[in-house]
Amino acid sequence: MNDLYVQIATLEIHPSQIAAYRLAVEEQAKTAIEKEPGALALNAVANKDDPTRITVFEIYRDRAAYESHLKAEHFLRYKATVETMVKSLKLTLVSPVVLATKPHA
Amino acid sequence: MNDLYVQIATLEIHPSQIAAYRLAVEEQAKTAIEKEPGALALNAVANKDDPTRITVFEIYRDRAAYESHLKAEHFLRYKATVETMVKSLKLTLVSPVVLATKPHA
Repeated sequence: MNDLYVQIATLEIHPSQIAAYRLAVEEQAKTAIEKEPGALALNAVANKDDPTRITVFEIYRDRAAYESHLKAEHFLRYKATVETMVKSLKLTLVSPVVLATKPHA
Repeated sequence: MNDLYVQIATLEIHPSQIAAYRLAVEEQAKTAIEKEPGALALNAVANKDDPTRITVFEIYRDRAAYESHLKAEHFLRYKATVETMVKSLKLTLVSPVVLATKPHA
């Protein structure tokens, strides 16, 4: 677990672009988990009281896996697609304290 | 996935209490995942550049499962233990956009 590269992305989306952004991040996350051996989890959520506020909780096997992700074709396509949808983006690098998940959840 | 109850807790911990807080949240999260059928994920992380800042990404099967969690003996013990360690706590209710996780990750 010590090598894991874990990041929290917080984004603000232009209100008119919420539906389009949700589709783009869904496709990107599913493709990353399917195609990138080092992408372990990509969980995107929207604030209930403000759906323009998105948080993405990202877990990669290690830093190299994250760097591969940044170069992956599906990630580059996502970046280009959402560029005009995203009002702000903040990336916070974090380290795991405890990652407890139900098996097969 | 529509019934899931997903919450992000952001906490600030008193600097002298970081080690004790980490142990308490680790025990609580592992116990919840093991003992509560409706607790699906409890992932706690610390900011790399400020370890007093903790984020907990929590997934429950539904609202009733979250309410059971709040009454569970291990959760009540955790709350009592960390009461003086926590400087601030903010809970943000969110809804899933995409939860993509590697099988067996």
